[in-house]
Amino acid sequence: MKNLKFDLKKTTGKARLGVLHTAHGKINTPAFMPVGTAGTIKAMTPDAVANTGAEIILGNTYHLMLRPGPNLIEKFGGLHKFMNWKGPILTDSGGFQILSLSSLRKLSEKGVVFQSHIDGSSHELTPESSIEIQYKLGADITMVLDECTPFPSNIEKTRTSMERSMRWAIRSKDAFIPREGHGLFGIVQGGMYPELRFESAESLKDIGFDGYAIGGLAVGEGQDMMLKIVDNITQELPSDRPRYLMGVGKPKDLIGAVLRGVDMFDCVLPTRSGRTGQAFSRKGEINMRNSRHKNDTRAIDPACNCYACENFSRCYIHHLIRSKEILGSTLLTWHNLHYYQELMHALRKAIASESIEAFETEYLTQLDGGDFPALKDK
Amino acid sequence: MKNLKFDLKKTTGKARLGVLHTAHGKINTPAFMPVGTAGTIKAMTPDAVANTGAEIILGNTYHLMLRPGPNLIEKFGGLHKFMNWKGPILTDSGGFQILSLSSLRKLSEKGVVFQSHIDGSSHELTPESSIEIQYKLGADITMVLDECTPFPSNIEKTRTSMERSMRWAIRSKDAFIPREGHGLFGIVQGGMYPELRFESAESLKDIGFDGYAIGGLAVGEGQDMMLKIVDNITQELPSDRPRYLMGVGKPKDLIGAVLRGVDMFDCVLPTRSGRTGQAFSRKGEINMRNSRHKNDTRAIDPACNCYACENFSRCYIHHLIRSKEILGSTLLTWHNLHYYQELMHALRKAIASESIEAFETEYLTQLDGGDFPALKDK
Repeated sequence: MKNLKFDLKKTTGKARLGVLHTAHGKINTPAFMPVGTAGTIKAMTPDAVANTGAEIILGNTYHLMLRPGPNLIEKFGGLHKFMNWKGPILTDSGGFQILSLSSLRKLSEKGVVFQSHIDGSSHELTPESSIEIQYKLGADITMVLDECTPFPSNIEKTRTSMERSMRWAIRSKDAFIPREGHGLFGIVQGGMYPELRFESAESLKDIGFDGYAIGGLAVGEGQDMMLKIVDNITQELPSDRPRYLMGVGKPKDLIGAVLRGVDMFDCVLPTRSGRTGQAFSRKGEINMRNSRHKNDTRAIDPACNCYACENFSRCYIHHLIRSKEILGSTLLTWHNLHYYQELMHALRKAIASESIEAFETEYLTQLDGGDFPALKDK
Repeated sequence: MKNLKFDLKKTTGKARLGVLHTAHGKINTPAFMPVGTAGTIKAMTPDAVANTGAEIILGNTYHLMLRPGPNLIEKFGGLHKFMNWKGPILTDSGGFQILSLSSLRKLSEKGVVFQSHIDGSSHELTPESSIEIQYKLGADITMVLDECTPFPSNIEKTRTSMERSMRWAIRSKDAFIPREGHGLFGIVQGGMYPELRFESAESLKDIGFDGYAIGGLAVGEGQDMMLKIVDNITQELPSDRPRYLMGVGKPKDLIGAVLRGVDMFDCVLPTRSGRTGQAFSRKGEINMRNSRHKNDTRAIDPACNCYACENFSRCYIHHLIRSKEILGSTLLTWHNLHYYQELMHALRKAIASESIEAFETEYLTQLDGGDFPALKDK
């Protein structure tokens, strides 16, 4: 079953350049997916999101199943139409948010019973119902329900959790209705134990998926361990299917993971940081609340060509953030999403020109605590 | 002195069609000015504001003098450049906000001493300093400092207040530096007393201004009294200068005032209401929080061609408002500002075609509590 066509264009070292074809258009990989939790990329219109260069976004099943509900969205013609996003959408399974946001969770072989963080109402999510909800949302890419094993966990607990996730993966696959341009991704679990990760990958390959995600990372283990596990597991995954590292990460995490063979990412960092006054840049992160920007007439990054940098100054954005103005959140989110997309574009270019290792060295060298020394005295 | 060129194109009854020429472009009148309190129309990019059809916006001297301060904005090249608004800007004098937002105010002949609502710091605003601040902001249209007489006030207090405002008007005029395409507006006060309004208008005409504002209305006196005072005073004002009714209002207030010879308006209603879930429409105001919109796949107004109505449904916007998503504020603000601009456009058309009285009748007839009965059962 290959519901999603994946063209692997080139491999440089372990880094891969590809194109994933979906019912709502193609995605150049490596790709970064902005997170649209409740049916909107926070503080952005869908036109603005597309303007940043994003080709695919992520929707959260947990939030959308609680409000406005999958039936309403299905009646409306799916999440694409509901939120007016014309490109592909990947939906998660809901499992991760249940464990991080809801209360009174009861995990069993059948699935998970939880209370809504909105109104305390009781809900159940099973592998089958998660797949059904994602079908109603109209996801181009559906994720299997799994348990993101807590960190740290000992090897016995991690094995128990991983093995249940693998049984859920079989049930998810059984429940999935194949359609042209729509696909189902399995998720490798196994915590920080390479042998469990290996077993998990083998189980998923036996089931057969349109893509393979790596879950349960970026949970506090640190970048070194994360990249080691990524490095180990990507070589176990089929080379003709896309690989998706879930919930990652900072720019240098993305670069490290691309170098180790990952094709897709999602993370709330660029959007959430934008709303709290943080800007990403090639020099590092910049705290726009800091009063050093009060009189700074430069753009966040004078070399950036995003809407925020082309039209507004640091002092204006600093003023907006200090004044708690919505436009401050919008402009920083816009800049950050654009920065992430530019980074992915540069990574794809570096893979194409076989200069990906040099790219990482150069990237890490120019990081300078978010400042732009050449322009400092202006 | 005519720093601002005003072409009165046509008069139908008392309603006037005109064009006001400023340093940053022309304004078709009757015109509605969105309020950009702290250097931003809340929840909107300047591109989005221009997209609604707005030709001029208003900036608040009180907010901008406290944060980020007039010197910073002047250093930056003025408010236009700071906030990236390319059209004309009118700034108020700061007087009204001092009385409504700050604490520990001490009003004297010299001016007003007040405490900032942001950090409690002490500030003084005089007619001269208000004009200087507005100069630094780079306003196309500057307003004299006045006192918005509290409502209700007896005739003695109202006279005392009005007469001081007229002395401040002389000092404001003396402090104003004339420049091509920039103008100074006087403000008629006198509370609810026609004879004081008349005296105030005479004083201002003697001083001579580029435009004449009507202040101290929409303070709780009701629409009937407001329109009676507007009707009385417009006939006392020079016909070759624009007339600006400050802080007004609801759509039917704008129509009533245009019929009585007013050319310009500003009000926070379309923006503030948008952020709290209210939509304006030709059928009246619509509370988008109401659960009757939960399954409604229609646009706010199916006949509206704003960005929100062309791309999103009531059920989506209802979902955003309920989920406290920023995009909900943006879309409703966008719709409301577009609605106000469309109303002004329709009013200008009705004046041009000499059908303004019929326009008002038709407008009031179609109001129906915000619902669209023809589509109700869909």
